[in-house]
Amino acid sequence: MPETLWAKGDSVDALVHHFTVGEDPTTDLALLPFDCLSSAAHARSLASAGLISEDDASALVTELAKLHALAEQGALSIPHALEDGHTLLEAKLTEALGDIGAKIHLGRSRNEQVALALRLWMRQALLDLGEGVAALAEALLAFAEKHGDASLPGLTHLRRAMPSSFGLWAEAFAEGLLEELEALPALDARLDRSPAHSAAGFGTPLPFHLIQAASRLGFSRVQRNPLDVQNGRGRHEGALLAWLSSLSLTLEKLAWDGCLYGSEGFGFLKLPTAFTTGSSLMPQKRNPDALELARARAREIRGLAAIVERIGSGLPSSYHRDFQLLKKPMLEATHHALATLAVLTRLMEGLEPDGSAAEAACGDELYAANEAFRLAGEGLPFRQAYRAVATQIGEGTFAPNKDAAGPPSVGRLLAPARADLAKARAWLSARHTVIQTLTASLFQDLP
Amino acid sequence: MPETLWAKGDSVDALVHHFTVGEDPTTDLALLPFDCLSSAAHARSLASAGLISEDDASALVTELAKLHALAEQGALSIPHALEDGHTLLEAKLTEALGDIGAKIHLGRSRNEQVALALRLWMRQALLDLGEGVAALAEALLAFAEKHGDASLPGLTHLRRAMPSSFGLWAEAFAEGLLEELEALPALDARLDRSPAHSAAGFGTPLPFHLIQAASRLGFSRVQRNPLDVQNGRGRHEGALLAWLSSLSLTLEKLAWDGCLYGSEGFGFLKLPTAFTTGSSLMPQKRNPDALELARARAREIRGLAAIVERIGSGLPSSYHRDFQLLKKPMLEATHHALATLAVLTRLMEGLEPDGSAAEAACGDELYAANEAFRLAGEGLPFRQAYRAVATQIGEGTFAPNKDAAGPPSVGRLLAPARADLAKARAWLSARHTVIQTLTASLFQDLP
Amino acid sequence: MPETLWAKGDSVDALVHHFTVGEDPTTDLALLPFDCLSSAAHARSLASAGLISEDDASALVTELAKLHALAEQGALSIPHALEDGHTLLEAKLTEALGDIGAKIHLGRSRNEQVALALRLWMRQALLDLGEGVAALAEALLAFAEKHGDASLPGLTHLRRAMPSSFGLWAEAFAEGLLEELEALPALDARLDRSPAHSAAGFGTPLPFHLIQAASRLGFSRVQRNPLDVQNGRGRHEGALLAWLSSLSLTLEKLAWDGCLYGSEGFGFLKLPTAFTTGSSLMPQKRNPDALELARARAREIRGLAAIVERIGSGLPSSYHRDFQLLKKPMLEATHHALATLAVLTRLMEGLEPDGSAAEAACGDELYAANEAFRLAGEGLPFRQAYRAVATQIGEGTFAPNKDAAGPPSVGRLLAPARADLAKARAWLSARHTVIQTLTASLFQDLP
Amino acid sequence: MPETLWAKGDSVDALVHHFTVGEDPTTDLALLPFDCLSSAAHARSLASAGLISEDDASALVTELAKLHALAEQGALSIPHALEDGHTLLEAKLTEALGDIGAKIHLGRSRNEQVALALRLWMRQALLDLGEGVAALAEALLAFAEKHGDASLPGLTHLRRAMPSSFGLWAEAFAEGLLEELEALPALDARLDRSPAHSAAGFGTPLPFHLIQAASRLGFSRVQRNPLDVQNGRGRHEGALLAWLSSLSLTLEKLAWDGCLYGSEGFGFLKLPTAFTTGSSLMPQKRNPDALELARARAREIRGLAAIVERIGSGLPSSYHRDFQLLKKPMLEATHHALATLAVLTRLMEGLEPDGSAAEAACGDELYAANEAFRLAGEGLPFRQAYRAVATQIGEGTFAPNKDAAGPPSVGRLLAPARADLAKARAWLSARHTVIQTLTASLFQDLP
Repeated sequence: MPETLWAKGDSVDALVHHFTVGEDPTTDLALLPFDCLSSAAHARSLASAGLISEDDASALVTELAKLHALAEQGALSIPHALEDGHTLLEAKLTEALGDIGAKIHLGRSRNEQVALALRLWMRQALLDLGEGVAALAEALLAFAEKHGDASLPGLTHLRRAMPSSFGLWAEAFAEGLLEELEALPALDARLDRSPAHSAAGFGTPLPFHLIQAASRLGFSRVQRNPLDVQNGRGRHEGALLAWLSSLSLTLEKLAWDGCLYGSEGFGFLKLPTAFTTGSSLMPQKRNPDALELARARAREIRGLAAIVERIGSGLPSSYHRDFQLLKKPMLEATHHALATLAVLTRLMEGLEPDGSAAEAACGDELYAANEAFRLAGEGLPFRQAYRAVATQIGEGTFAPNKDAAGPPSVGRLLAPARADLAKARAWLSARHTVIQTLTASLFQDLP
Repeated sequence: MPETLWAKGDSVDALVHHFTVGEDPTTDLALLPFDCLSSAAHARSLASAGLISEDDASALVTELAKLHALAEQGALSIPHALEDGHTLLEAKLTEALGDIGAKIHLGRSRNEQVALALRLWMRQALLDLGEGVAALAEALLAFAEKHGDASLPGLTHLRRAMPSSFGLWAEAFAEGLLEELEALPALDARLDRSPAHSAAGFGTPLPFHLIQAASRLGFSRVQRNPLDVQNGRGRHEGALLAWLSSLSLTLEKLAWDGCLYGSEGFGFLKLPTAFTTGSSLMPQKRNPDALELARARAREIRGLAAIVERIGSGLPSSYHRDFQLLKKPMLEATHHALATLAVLTRLMEGLEPDGSAAEAACGDELYAANEAFRLAGEGLPFRQAYRAVATQIGEGTFAPNKDAAGPPSVGRLLAPARADLAKARAWLSARHTVIQTLTASLFQDLP
Repeated sequence: MPETLWAKGDSVDALVHHFTVGEDPTTDLALLPFDCLSSAAHARSLASAGLISEDDASALVTELAKLHALAEQGALSIPHALEDGHTLLEAKLTEALGDIGAKIHLGRSRNEQVALALRLWMRQALLDLGEGVAALAEALLAFAEKHGDASLPGLTHLRRAMPSSFGLWAEAFAEGLLEELEALPALDARLDRSPAHSAAGFGTPLPFHLIQAASRLGFSRVQRNPLDVQNGRGRHEGALLAWLSSLSLTLEKLAWDGCLYGSEGFGFLKLPTAFTTGSSLMPQKRNPDALELARARAREIRGLAAIVERIGSGLPSSYHRDFQLLKKPMLEATHHALATLAVLTRLMEGLEPDGSAAEAACGDELYAANEAFRLAGEGLPFRQAYRAVATQIGEGTFAPNKDAAGPPSVGRLLAPARADLAKARAWLSARHTVIQTLTASLFQDLP
Repeated sequence: MPETLWAKGDSVDALVHHFTVGEDPTTDLALLPFDCLSSAAHARSLASAGLISEDDASALVTELAKLHALAEQGALSIPHALEDGHTLLEAKLTEALGDIGAKIHLGRSRNEQVALALRLWMRQALLDLGEGVAALAEALLAFAEKHGDASLPGLTHLRRAMPSSFGLWAEAFAEGLLEELEALPALDARLDRSPAHSAAGFGTPLPFHLIQAASRLGFSRVQRNPLDVQNGRGRHEGALLAWLSSLSLTLEKLAWDGCLYGSEGFGFLKLPTAFTTGSSLMPQKRNPDALELARARAREIRGLAAIVERIGSGLPSSYHRDFQLLKKPMLEATHHALATLAVLTRLMEGLEPDGSAAEAACGDELYAANEAFRLAGEGLPFRQAYRAVATQIGEGTFAPNKDAAGPPSVGRLLAPARADLAKARAWLSARHTVIQTLTASLFQDLP
């Protein structure tokens, strides 16, 4: 918890300053590299429009390249007095370049800078997340292949229902993740619009070339209406968080199953030792703490989405300072999702089925529906076949032919899942290249 | 509020029955037509797999066609004793066809039926919503064209900031809506997977042809892993609700602006009389009730999404009865969104700018930034130009050249927006045709 | 889902009317009896202030007594054209009494009527809920007494941890509920302020006697500032929902334990047959549907609280029509809580421990901490004792003295819990009497 | 955003360690002073039970007193390797006292330590928050008294409705806050139960004296059932957050009114200069940033409550590691609430009405209802009087007698509000004394 300055008799100015600065000196560190990129593009725009000289632009870009490198190394810090990253950049440029630095803000506003830096940050985050998801999907498919059709009771309502397999179980999570990967390009498309030169939300009369500016930053399109740039605050952060929330559902389910199937009661899975933690009190215990925390992080991600929703809604159009508070929950949710993906990937690499416990839980009763199918296949209407089997079970005479209807085979699912995964990875890789290339070009040709 | 049976001394059985049935007899009415479709497809699958005769299949399909028509007319009701729509259908079929009806449930479970009916319902809802959004976008563009560059003060922080126009204002909402329309195909793709023959989540050993079954119902793909079908409960409903929540942000902003700009304080807009309501106490009042309710419905939609999120999360894999409660909030949110879209569309058709009030609010100070740009264009570093203008304002000598920098023109935005809208509508229309054709084919060739 | 009038070409007036009426004709049925009460009190206030004659007041009250009886029987319905319950009442009074009926609205507004009817409704709901909670607490204490110190493994992290008992388990939920009961009077105090004569939020210049009016309706105090009455919309509904949300946590945990402990994996509890439901597909299955739905209702209640929070927040002071949508989620959440309490009470009455399964799960390792305590009691620093026991377990030589440290006894907890329950019930009963007496007095002395 | 260790090839152990430690090294700093207190009480309990010597207990308490002082000064830090504050304490004690330090954990678990430290922290936070609320209420009452019955149009639906006053407006917020202050003792009572010696949730067989232990820490009561201590995680944090959420509604409304009434459109209020911030782009602008951020913090607080709700729900009974993540949102919400209260208190001290703008907005039409009352007072049924006035307004002949019915006077509300405030402050002060006294006594009589 940050220091509580509030109740301690500071001057109103200090109190208000502290309150309005908030967490910006921390959150903006993540945005700084992207603010350097967009500022370099802005300098080029100013020169293209004849508003500053090419030499001035090059001086600005050269300085921004240095600041970009420092920001990426985490070597910049934002003094509380400077409030935020945008002010820091202008101060650094003015410090290094004097009047030339003081030209950088021509035709833009902090609102535009935030929108741009966030858009670039989200574009990158989305790719990082996509790679994390792909890695976990791969680990799940590897587990499914390795443990294939080994028996696992298929539960519904937490109770034994039908024959299933470890392969089917793990592959189901892979499918859930592939669905999220497939949804990524549309999320990317939502964000892939340049807000450059939208200024305070009403554009400027300056002769900027919007399509060129978009292209400089690797955007495929211009976000045409400048007011929509500000109206989009909350909507765009919310779109990323909605995707993370959907992802979190699959991560939570996997973690939940790990906790449950790893308990003595179910016993179907053996967690790797590194994934369990001792108790401070009970010498015998090994607890699945990492999985419980993965489950809780999934919930926290959705809770952070609930913050973004609240802050990004309920307001008339255009910019309001409220939007400042959108940054932190978005950064945190992304961070937690990346960490949870990494931990679950490592888990899947070390997880082992407890075959005998699973086998022991696969009693005859799992085959009741299949037996009813068999009877129905012989001509009995299904509802009668169902009742016939129920009677056998009730009378203790039920003896199904298990070989005739084993657990569903996961084998045929692996190849198409791998193909989908490869396709998703190809898209991630292509996007990555586009972004890297364009980013690099902003800082090339420097003296 | 439904009757409160609870505390009145009923037998345990009656109490539990009432509790488990819940709102199904109402909610399932919306799903019944889609359950008829999927049941007809199931009958065809059973025949194709040789599990029932072609004659039996045709008898079932013929009966289901009748039930489908009745369901679409709202002519079916679900007695509380029958619990839900799925049981009603099987009962109706058995009543009409005897043993043949009792064959329909072979190889499927209610869990699969719900998943299928919901998927088909969502697919349709998505198109209806898309059309509602397109209509509102069109009305906004028409308003933007009609009132074009007429002056409106551009506000930030609710305070006068820069020159703007009624056209820019209205077109910004159209852009927000076009973004949602552009996101629809990806949502559709998420849902466009057939869960047919996933049974209780572990498939069946019966020789169903999954691709054929998918195609019968107009799905492009099979949802391969049957367990993922049940894991996807909550995720799929949540995806629709996430889209609705994003949409709600734009609707809420438009309604908020209508309330604010229509108030005596701002006075920029004149609401159509039909959109205002009198007070029961104050004879002079006309209140913007419909807009306030549109704003509240937007919030309610996000609250309904919060219900879906809570019920569809926090559980281990596979089916749990909890999922039953996902239906009502999804149906309600869709209903409210359609209603709100319709009302706001009508609003835009009758809304009028109050040009003189808007003009009066466009004072010289809106041109301060533009004047600083002009000075910067003459060579002054922007930060100095900014200070120079601030000094003029402070000294009361500020006299900007307004003609040199009028409000941003919306004209050039209309054509590309219309092109995007046409593209979205073409997609909606194409999907509509696909679904209608396939649906019709299920009930064709009947005796 | 209600009919979708929206997209079908109705006139704007019809569309807007339908939209603004919303669910009021349904939700207001629950509020009608309370509106009759507050209207009767208003008639008396008008007479006391000399604004109408005593005869007129008596005529109004007599008519309202009839309407109250009809409303309580569910014999009134609200035509869509009349919009809401308040309009219905004025229409009924005017229909019956002509000009006298047209006097009832003097000095009040619908905003005040809603606030009053809701306050009275909540006051009653709170007592009904309190009784439902008390009944469940009693059933839990009875279970705890009956099954007392019978062994149950105490789980942490879902894993076996320490010796526990069925009594301790059940009594813990009773304690959670007693905490909610103890919180009720403060919630009641929050609501126990009369909003009578606050009118549109700015009072009236009419000579009403506010304390007398409060007392007529059984309120202990006046809500002094009329604007706070409207500012309190959302805050008061939210206070009830916050209490329900807290309650839902205990209900959800109990239902979760029932699902888990009733599964084959854990097997500690046997659910009464009436509480399980068959599968449509699998003849052998008995599923704990009622418990899963209780768990889901608990989540839904918190989701409904999330709706109330969204609609009741984010607005400037005073009344906004948005508040209309606060009613439905509040009514629904209360209804679901009452139903869930009733179902869980019945469950506890029929629930049986599976003693042998629980016993079998109570292995030596549960006594590891106690053994470390014993060693520490002999002088070893605890951290060393802990390591010593861990070593014994690792080496397979751990043999604890189980008799020396059995499961924690629940016996001593029952008496104080029962005392707390009795105290809570006494408060409920006293409040009930106050409300009934005052309510009755409103309709007494009639001709 | 913390460093993203995740994707960088660390060993599984390091990855899992980092993941499970999470934000504890930061969040636990706030809890450390309270952990020192509860550890000192535990040492005394151990000695009273004869489990360690009085000398050992005194040595432990002496050391804990030193650590308590360091923790309060912020002079302790928690190395990542030590994971959390509880481990740090045991390490520090063992480092200083050797085997004596290793005795401190006898009979307790980290779960109990967390529950205790949180309970003590919350008890203190509640008083701090109460004082912050009282200060704001006082500032509002001072504003109400100073500006008294000065005219302000009473708005409903954001539109001019009835005569009101600046006093009534400000006092309404004070009433909202007084309601929260009045709710504090019940919240305190919920938390005022000692979880000491509940161990892992199943108590211990050691001869601890629970009532004595409670009293040592200033608790009035024992939380009797040790399992309920763990079941109460989420419920207790949620109770604090529910109170904060309710408080946030009033803070948000006040901030919203400040933004709106301070806008050029409404113009009723003049914000102190220190409360407005310039634009980076527009030289003329002064924006109400601090108020917008206060509004957003109010939303964020409710969003943090949504995190607590998600993490603290949806789980079976007893402890789960998920609960670790409850700490951060609770600490943050409390911090933000204190900051927002402080800022709004300072705002009210400097806020000025713009009397002439408010006066200008108080047109004749505000008196329409009052004029209808006057006519009704002369015998016309109100509904007819209402129509008569509406006709006059429509015909432009409406000329009300304003003197007869001025704005509602706030004067009579100030004294009772001040009395309520004094009562709340007396309670805060008494609780403060109790806690301070008992806390001090833990560390007294040391050598």
